[in-house]
Amino acid sequence: MNPYLDRQLMARAIQLARQGIYTTSPNPRVGCVIAHGETIVGEGYHVRAGEGHAEVNALRQAGAAAKGATAYVTLEPCSHFGRTPPCAAALIQAGVARVVSAMGDPNPQVNGRGIAMLNEAGIATEVGLLENEARALNPGFIKRMTTGRPWVRVKLAMSADGRTAMRSGESQWITGAPARQAVQRLRARSCAVVTGIGSILHDDSALTVRAAELGLANAEQVAERQPLRVVLDRQGQLSPNARILQQSGRTLWMTTSDAERSGAERVAAQLSEASIDLAWVLDYLGQQEQCNEILIEAGAVLAGGFVAAGLVDELVVFMAPTLLGSHARPLVELPLEAMAQQQRLELTDVRQFGDDLRLTYRLAQRG
Amino acid sequence: MNPYLDRQLMARAIQLARQGIYTTSPNPRVGCVIAHGETIVGEGYHVRAGEGHAEVNALRQAGAAAKGATAYVTLEPCSHFGRTPPCAAALIQAGVARVVSAMGDPNPQVNGRGIAMLNEAGIATEVGLLENEARALNPGFIKRMTTGRPWVRVKLAMSADGRTAMRSGESQWITGAPARQAVQRLRARSCAVVTGIGSILHDDSALTVRAAELGLANAEQVAERQPLRVVLDRQGQLSPNARILQQSGRTLWMTTSDAERSGAERVAAQLSEASIDLAWVLDYLGQQEQCNEILIEAGAVLAGGFVAAGLVDELVVFMAPTLLGSHARPLVELPLEAMAQQQRLELTDVRQFGDDLRLTYRLAQRG
Repeated sequence: MNPYLDRQLMARAIQLARQGIYTTSPNPRVGCVIAHGETIVGEGYHVRAGEGHAEVNALRQAGAAAKGATAYVTLEPCSHFGRTPPCAAALIQAGVARVVSAMGDPNPQVNGRGIAMLNEAGIATEVGLLENEARALNPGFIKRMTTGRPWVRVKLAMSADGRTAMRSGESQWITGAPARQAVQRLRARSCAVVTGIGSILHDDSALTVRAAELGLANAEQVAERQPLRVVLDRQGQLSPNARILQQSGRTLWMTTSDAERSGAERVAAQLSEASIDLAWVLDYLGQQEQCNEILIEAGAVLAGGFVAAGLVDELVVFMAPTLLGSHARPLVELPLEAMAQQQRLELTDVRQFGDDLRLTYRLAQRG
Repeated sequence: MNPYLDRQLMARAIQLARQGIYTTSPNPRVGCVIAHGETIVGEGYHVRAGEGHAEVNALRQAGAAAKGATAYVTLEPCSHFGRTPPCAAALIQAGVARVVSAMGDPNPQVNGRGIAMLNEAGIATEVGLLENEARALNPGFIKRMTTGRPWVRVKLAMSADGRTAMRSGESQWITGAPARQAVQRLRARSCAVVTGIGSILHDDSALTVRAAELGLANAEQVAERQPLRVVLDRQGQLSPNARILQQSGRTLWMTTSDAERSGAERVAAQLSEASIDLAWVLDYLGQQEQCNEILIEAGAVLAGGFVAAGLVDELVVFMAPTLLGSHARPLVELPLEAMAQQQRLELTDVRQFGDDLRLTYRLAQRG
């Protein structure tokens, strides 16, 4: 008897779940392994909304061999009819003997009911194996289900002295191609990419996922699902000719203007002290658009606004090996005067991309 | 026959050399292994100036067993009488059959003569095995021998957004205790610690190596050799009560003042455009004080001055997981206006110290 068997098979299920990282939205990334002891008889993961859940895909592969097996799932099997029938029912029907789940489903429609259904059918269940690893698959889904807001990731690129551009605004090519590929992947895993009108006016960015720049085997499939693009533009300065309006996929234009822009859906922005209310933006994206993870790709003012409001979950900073000097623009506009006001971070990851470093930080939520 | 034998024994010699990192100054760090095939009969390293060189220490351990052996040395054996007799002569006298050296000695007094002496005595020699690793032991010694100037390392501590202090100057505790220990070790390996009068007036730093903070088994021995302290103080603002004047070891006071300060040796500073000439400071420390590695622990203005003058070899940046905001003080005062003026760096090392990161960068020399 291998004492690490459950752990090894759950680790495999998590590995499977990760294959859906770019495609499952707004659903969570979920993987499933069905096994008799060490013998795997079925594997599956959720690919995209509307298609089979992980359990159903694994059961299909297992066929009759599912009977008496153990199912390892990274998330509690669902108990409700959504676009597909409940997975708990499918596991019962297939005759599995035991279900090990890495975590409970934070979806209020499930939240223990999947496990309860299995127990009522006489199936042994365990919850919590490799829970931290499973939670890391779905920070956005978990946060949305528990707070109604998406996981907020702010992407920044800076020099080794913490600057993003020269005083003039000149900023091209701070980071190299591998870092830009990593940014493409951050976009691809996000439900929405949020920017400010300043960035659009300055860079005329398209904010799209470009298959050729992802460096992924399934790049074409990934790029089919373009993340929602969101432009915060209180005064309505967005040009009808902006590149962001010419792309496939949807663009939301959050503004107080009552004009229209072809290629964008206008959303009447809620204000807070004459600026767009950033907490409202998150509520809107979480509740109206089912956004799990959003990526903020904005200038120092908007990024600093999200940080100052305590609304950021994660900072992803690409740091290039160069000094731009003390006249250059700051990483984030954040007008602090005393050490007591500093925004403490928690460093969770450091990785090298070409000549650049990617630093990932967690922030405590306040907003 | 082990094809990696020479390499393995040279790697051991380098490991031995490293044990002298805090104590050999102004001599280079050198290690030596004497072996018959795989059997090591003698090991040694240079501990401190005036005591035995690595070869002599290894030969003493080997005794009669040195006869017919191979000697692995991280630096070409010396050919001249210094405070000790030439090592090449000692190796010849001991009857070693072969000498493998990682690199030639850049000291103009040696520079191939050690190898020539060995060859004339009929000893087989090889030079260049693990040369890069051997050179990394002695960046300062090599630079001083070839240019007359020390290796210039600038230590900085910053927030994740590249700031060193609040606008008011408030800056305590940006980095944690493990990072401060690493700074103590940087000081301990340096021949001199250089600062500006601004830092002394603001922090009243002692700039000493403190045995209790080194976390080294031989901390007491290391702290016996205090690096030379150097204060750049054009106008002579150094207070007679400054802590830096009350420490063991020497303090140089580089100034245009003709006053004296008890506890410091005054050096008449050479000026360049009304500031102390930083290239002259390096020439002075290299040529008058035999400084191999110097550590600049200064504020943004002086550190920026060294960078702007193209005089810095290495930046060591300790980065704390916190945001100090856009009003806070810059990493280095470096007034650049265009991307074309940026100072490119080469990232050579990233390491975590507690919650902080240490980033090491190389700069191309221009000055």
